[in-house]
Amino acid sequence: MKTNWLDAGDSDFAERLTALTAWSEERDEEVTERVRGILKDVAQRGDQAVIDYTNRFDRRQVTSMAELTVNREQLLAALERIPVALREALEAAARRVRAYHEKQKQDSWQYRDEHGSLLGQQVTPLDRVGIYVPGGKAAYPSSVLMNALPAHVAGVGEIVMVSPAPDGELNDVVLAAAAVAGVERFFSLGGAQAVAALAHGTETVPAVDKIVGPGNIYVAEAKRQVFGKVGIDMIAGPSEILVVCDGKTDPEWIAMDLFSQAEHDEEAQSILVSPDAEFLKRVDAAMDRLAPTLEREDIIRTSMANRGALIQVRDLDQALEVVNRVSPEHLELSMDDAEAWARKVRHAGAIFLGRHTPEALGDYCAGPNHVLPTSATARFSSPLGVYDFQKRSSLIGCSPEGASELGRIASALARGESLTAHARSAEYRIKKD
Amino acid sequence: MKTNWLDAGDSDFAERLTALTAWSEERDEEVTERVRGILKDVAQRGDQAVIDYTNRFDRRQVTSMAELTVNREQLLAALERIPVALREALEAAARRVRAYHEKQKQDSWQYRDEHGSLLGQQVTPLDRVGIYVPGGKAAYPSSVLMNALPAHVAGVGEIVMVSPAPDGELNDVVLAAAAVAGVERFFSLGGAQAVAALAHGTETVPAVDKIVGPGNIYVAEAKRQVFGKVGIDMIAGPSEILVVCDGKTDPEWIAMDLFSQAEHDEEAQSILVSPDAEFLKRVDAAMDRLAPTLEREDIIRTSMANRGALIQVRDLDQALEVVNRVSPEHLELSMDDAEAWARKVRHAGAIFLGRHTPEALGDYCAGPNHVLPTSATARFSSPLGVYDFQKRSSLIGCSPEGASELGRIASALARGESLTAHARSAEYRIKKD
Repeated sequence: MKTNWLDAGDSDFAERLTALTAWSEERDEEVTERVRGILKDVAQRGDQAVIDYTNRFDRRQVTSMAELTVNREQLLAALERIPVALREALEAAARRVRAYHEKQKQDSWQYRDEHGSLLGQQVTPLDRVGIYVPGGKAAYPSSVLMNALPAHVAGVGEIVMVSPAPDGELNDVVLAAAAVAGVERFFSLGGAQAVAALAHGTETVPAVDKIVGPGNIYVAEAKRQVFGKVGIDMIAGPSEILVVCDGKTDPEWIAMDLFSQAEHDEEAQSILVSPDAEFLKRVDAAMDRLAPTLEREDIIRTSMANRGALIQVRDLDQALEVVNRVSPEHLELSMDDAEAWARKVRHAGAIFLGRHTPEALGDYCAGPNHVLPTSATARFSSPLGVYDFQKRSSLIGCSPEGASELGRIASALARGESLTAHARSAEYRIKKD
Repeated sequence: MKTNWLDAGDSDFAERLTALTAWSEERDEEVTERVRGILKDVAQRGDQAVIDYTNRFDRRQVTSMAELTVNREQLLAALERIPVALREALEAAARRVRAYHEKQKQDSWQYRDEHGSLLGQQVTPLDRVGIYVPGGKAAYPSSVLMNALPAHVAGVGEIVMVSPAPDGELNDVVLAAAAVAGVERFFSLGGAQAVAALAHGTETVPAVDKIVGPGNIYVAEAKRQVFGKVGIDMIAGPSEILVVCDGKTDPEWIAMDLFSQAEHDEEAQSILVSPDAEFLKRVDAAMDRLAPTLEREDIIRTSMANRGALIQVRDLDQALEVVNRVSPEHLELSMDDAEAWARKVRHAGAIFLGRHTPEALGDYCAGPNHVLPTSATARFSSPLGVYDFQKRSSLIGCSPEGASELGRIASALARGESLTAHARSAEYRIKKD
């Protein structure tokens, strides 16, 4: 199969790897301006602007927000309508995702220092969160679970979901997933107008404190522009997988694991790293055999040709060097002793251990989140989690003795910074002997 | 003193409070363009570009990066040079800040599910972090401690600090604070060129994974533009305090607490909320008495007149409603039972409990961080902390039994989303009966 063959021993390896994995999103001035206009219009005209843009962009003819509002009963009705097997799969996935995320929940803590002063951190959930879910063909119920469940586990007061209904069509499985994930309110809105409504609030759509979830360039740009007024999650790049294999896994399994990433879109990236040159060839042959059996063969071929790679390394230690350089979103360690090797991984969104853990299990139901840092941002960021829907307030309560002691230190430092009011505010609390 | 008097019982109260606390940062197209140019130039020309901009903007005449490099020995020498009392205050503050932040450190965890599959989260520190510290008059050694110590506690591999030296002048206390806080490398660089050097790396300045710390509009804009390539902290707005007092604290203490915020700059915001109308008047009179005794009287008067407020409420419950609406950066609960009241606070950066806990103690040495969410962003964000310098990787390791079970669920969901390669990758791991 047409793809990029690299050898970590080559002198130009670092350079080629950097070029292959580089991703810089093109920002379009015209998109920026159009989004700016939509945000301003929705902030000013509220519901009516939302209705106008929805009719225009989603080809609808609604006259009131009531037609764009899906209530909890309708979500539950969708859950009843979908095939039983799908419903059971959704519920099983939700149970596992919920159980994993429960472990991420952070509690408030406090302690007293030697002066009896209280120090601590009060952890609270966000009041209200907005979740964007793409509509139409790329409507993924699993995204509903992965975005809404951490918010629900965190104890967020109200979860508001938006998802567009192009030509009026809503995906029943998306509605059912929303029901399973604890979504309270649902509006069939999309695009920059949906983000605007969530950020500014309208007569009908409540203003939220944070907006998460994937979307097209208009949605991404709108999130970028409202950031600061509300919180947002990361703006994701194309999805990636890096598989390290010792050569002892069935080549067809590995080929299909690479394809499961490549089938997402033409920009997706699938990389296999192995010290076994023969194995790389066997996986290549397996890809040739398997590709014609898949619906998304064209996308897979384009993605493998442009951004895929088979990389030969000297040994597994060098494979780990490649891993830490790439800092992949998904890392599959298809090898013996995967747990031990995982401890050498410094940067990765999610690590899949051993031959029986394909990335697809993590995408749907293993438990951990499938919203992960892409484009090497795993160097400084984390999977979406309960912690993204909790926030912290520092707690400081000085005893009179503590205040007196700290007052002296603060006074010295404040005067060193010429901030006299700071110094005098502290000095009032110093005990007079 | 000229300031804004509000009464929570007035019909236009909500509107006036919103107007008073609104803050929207003006972004200047010219700044955006100039910063874009500087970033591009430094990315292309490296050290030489950094030297050129530094000579121009900081009025210097250096010819090599060596002249802009301060090594660990020079930092330690500065620590020896500063007055002993100041050194002791810095070290005492650092001890306390370190002790508090140690409690924020998060550990990796894992568990096994009913099939023996491993699930967990691997927590690792960032490899390298850049800390920006403003130079010149607004050089605050306390900022050095508050930004560098959490990174140090997190176990960050290398902490690189940048701080400009206008006309070649470096602040000894800033260098001393860097020594105390575990900074390994220090460059006397500032502005967008410093952010560019940290984000892209040059021959001399190593590329970092995250950039934190306050700066002017060029620094803020540069951070905004490099976000995505590296992590950044929040872009801070003007500093704010909201004091709730039951009327039983010395009015001069409260007046000075308000001033300690107002003296920062003309845009700073100081608000006092009390159910005791007489007390508000006594604080007003105390402000009149105290203002003329302060060096920064002019700044204080401007800030109190434009953005300050004395707010009368019906009772303390209504005071807490005002708190949660404002979501202040600093909240002082100068009242009885402050700990119990604090549990009703939903949004605040830091909560100062009781009459003996002025905000100034938290600014310098109580322990918690003084980098806090401003402009109501406490609704969705947290103080700077160790967690900002750690990141998480999900861990998933399926047993053959677990993979078989999960494979069935994933297959159903993937086929529901028409992602066949995902489904087949999962199905390979289902056991054949």
